[in-house]
Amino acid sequence: MKDLKKHIETNEDRLLDELFEFIRIPSVSSKEAHKADMYKATEWVKENLLKKGADKAEVCETQGHPVVYGEKIIDPGLPTVLIYGHYDVQPPEPLELWKSPPFEPEIRDGRIYARGADDDKGQMFMHFAAFEYLVETGQLPCNVKFMIEGEEEIGSPSLGQFLKDNREKLAADVILVSDTSMLGAETPSITTGLRGLSFCEVHVTGPNRDLHSGLFGGAVANPVNVLCEMIGSLIDENGRIAVKGFYDDVEELSPEEREEMGRAPFDDEKYKEALGVEELAGEKGYTTLERTGIRPTLDVNGIWGGYTGEGAKTVLPSEAHAKISMRLVPHQKSEKITQLFKDHFLSIAPKTVKVTVDFLHGGEGYVSPTDTPAYQAASKAYEKTYGIKPIPYRSGGSIPIISLFEHTLGIKTILMGFGLESDAIHSPNENYPLSQFFRGIETIPYFYRHFVELHRK
Amino acid sequence: MKDLKKHIETNEDRLLDELFEFIRIPSVSSKEAHKADMYKATEWVKENLLKKGADKAEVCETQGHPVVYGEKIIDPGLPTVLIYGHYDVQPPEPLELWKSPPFEPEIRDGRIYARGADDDKGQMFMHFAAFEYLVETGQLPCNVKFMIEGEEEIGSPSLGQFLKDNREKLAADVILVSDTSMLGAETPSITTGLRGLSFCEVHVTGPNRDLHSGLFGGAVANPVNVLCEMIGSLIDENGRIAVKGFYDDVEELSPEEREEMGRAPFDDEKYKEALGVEELAGEKGYTTLERTGIRPTLDVNGIWGGYTGEGAKTVLPSEAHAKISMRLVPHQKSEKITQLFKDHFLSIAPKTVKVTVDFLHGGEGYVSPTDTPAYQAASKAYEKTYGIKPIPYRSGGSIPIISLFEHTLGIKTILMGFGLESDAIHSPNENYPLSQFFRGIETIPYFYRHFVELHRK
Repeated sequence: MKDLKKHIETNEDRLLDELFEFIRIPSVSSKEAHKADMYKATEWVKENLLKKGADKAEVCETQGHPVVYGEKIIDPGLPTVLIYGHYDVQPPEPLELWKSPPFEPEIRDGRIYARGADDDKGQMFMHFAAFEYLVETGQLPCNVKFMIEGEEEIGSPSLGQFLKDNREKLAADVILVSDTSMLGAETPSITTGLRGLSFCEVHVTGPNRDLHSGLFGGAVANPVNVLCEMIGSLIDENGRIAVKGFYDDVEELSPEEREEMGRAPFDDEKYKEALGVEELAGEKGYTTLERTGIRPTLDVNGIWGGYTGEGAKTVLPSEAHAKISMRLVPHQKSEKITQLFKDHFLSIAPKTVKVTVDFLHGGEGYVSPTDTPAYQAASKAYEKTYGIKPIPYRSGGSIPIISLFEHTLGIKTILMGFGLESDAIHSPNENYPLSQFFRGIETIPYFYRHFVELHRK
Repeated sequence: MKDLKKHIETNEDRLLDELFEFIRIPSVSSKEAHKADMYKATEWVKENLLKKGADKAEVCETQGHPVVYGEKIIDPGLPTVLIYGHYDVQPPEPLELWKSPPFEPEIRDGRIYARGADDDKGQMFMHFAAFEYLVETGQLPCNVKFMIEGEEEIGSPSLGQFLKDNREKLAADVILVSDTSMLGAETPSITTGLRGLSFCEVHVTGPNRDLHSGLFGGAVANPVNVLCEMIGSLIDENGRIAVKGFYDDVEELSPEEREEMGRAPFDDEKYKEALGVEELAGEKGYTTLERTGIRPTLDVNGIWGGYTGEGAKTVLPSEAHAKISMRLVPHQKSEKITQLFKDHFLSIAPKTVKVTVDFLHGGEGYVSPTDTPAYQAASKAYEKTYGIKPIPYRSGGSIPIISLFEHTLGIKTILMGFGLESDAIHSPNENYPLSQFFRGIETIPYFYRHFVELHRK
């Protein structure tokens, strides 16, 4: 592509300035208090798209946070690429663990540190920058549409309706998303599988008030003890989830498929070292990459109950709570699993307490074929920039809307992620290497070129 | 006693004003931020004792919060009663559940609502008021000493040394304490047994940072899941504590003793209704009163880990924590049980996480005989005020220093409590009925009279 590297070098500082401006808007979708920030972020996205060369850009209201839509149609006869991204971010807590403020991006050791630096502001903005380059240099080979939502981190509750209401407007030949990771900084990979999700919150109530654990302890069920016992029983000694019917629909891969997956370079020792753990855990009979890629899991994401302050308080708490999520693999349906979990959890509740289960959000898994023009175009694009062919890889993460795209719009998605495992997304000190940011901007234009070429054949 | 009721009636308002002034000092011993309040409370106690007729009163420094000592020696040849109480209170959290501010006492429906209304400011101040009456009316029949500490709610870490350093000064014939409850407002009882305590905090650490539960879930041990499983295994299906050696020293009561205990009026149905639970829980083969009175227990007092805010956050937490306490019965030694717990908890920790156990505080249980002059004097005093003989009763609570008094000073303690189960001590909306407060003041002078009489025989 003409002057691509030069263009990036020349505009490096300005592109970072723009991204930082975007990151400084604390668009935390899960918190009511950030409602104004969400609007600020949509305005920023809209204005930036117009600035980068979009013919039009608009903020589309939904039941929840708005979606920003933008487009540049150069010729209705040419293929269309639909870029998806999200302007919302995870809550930054626990704040005390951040080395620099989460919403004040800081570059240290060649990385941008901030909430959203990778997920997904940083990765999404690479597409804006690549689009700008293609437009400015007159090399845009096809039509481009943008759909940037604000509810990805809370399960995209309004996007399904938005897709249904805008099928025609969103018509495209492929959806391009950068919201995943590569296997390593020099090991490009394309995510060909995603896990589904079922996220619930459980509540256990015992006595109608906090009690003195001496005067009442031993005679009344302690909801924290009960919750722990219930949670403790959810995973058996083989690391399998004990919810009845949970594995019924799980896709079992053939030995050949597992062997191919096993070719991905991966070192358990380095993985343990990076995470600071002495031993790994998980379902018996599966490797680490299989455990996160092709097997479903259950994790407690948060637990709270009783006195959690400094020192000792001899209380027998009235309530205990936990957030529990399950990652699902292809063919497991989120709704069915949620119901199975709910039924199971209520069935194991002793009569000494009251138990309720709230569904927070969910979504289906996804598998992408590797023999499509879009996958091949992405593969060639990575190879151009990184010098080696990317590995097709099944990730443990969930982007529930990817299966929704296929279902509602009938369009396949290509997950061209440039994140790294070390980016600490969803964690304190989230970061994104500058090298990945700029290499991403360099890779994307090649995707456009190859996709249009292969699409024609 | 001469003009006792009249004296109380005349001084009702002033006595409440004084108590309220005392309650307004937020003397929370477990929090560093309240250090100044602790000193304010000691000054208040000292000044009030002098005002009430003490010959001397002094604030005695310790390694922790000070002890206030006071005395009125009318004749070294007469018996001496040592009053023990504590000016510290439990933290008021959770604040949002209080109907009126915890440190602004309010009278509603004949009850004083405030942190410390019962435990122990309200109950302790009854002794100050009774002492005032005896002094003012010239009816004090013996010497009186006061030892008011400020660390009862955190396990009295400095009191042992204070007792050792002041054996002579504290010499007495009996220690009198009001820091326990009666079986009912019309069912006076004297606590003849207390449970010991071992309070620990446990920490489970998994990966060295919070992780994305999708990308890592299933391959790395989740410390919250692990902690739940560990806690879930601590109590078996019969409600017995699974810590190895835990029951080795437990005193097993004879069928006769259990039968006598069973005579205390108690109704499981009313108990369940008052607590709002459908079923009670506990060790199989024991009644509710036995479960809290003569059997040891294990309760989680607090648990926390991961994301506990609003909405969903798909995090695989780095750490999980819990506060776990055990109530012990006579012959179980706190130190030994703490060690057994620690050994057991570490032994069940999987290698996928790091586990540590911190000891927060502990103390021994206590059993009081009923054939002593002191017990008989207390029994007669209650009978005089309430019209019926009090029931000897083993409480589930712990006042670890009672066994320390016996051990270090060689003095037996009488637990003349006037609290009620409905007082919600350690809970939001702690309260103390005015009727119990004034009946307590009325009962105490009779104890002095009968004790001196019986002691002479």
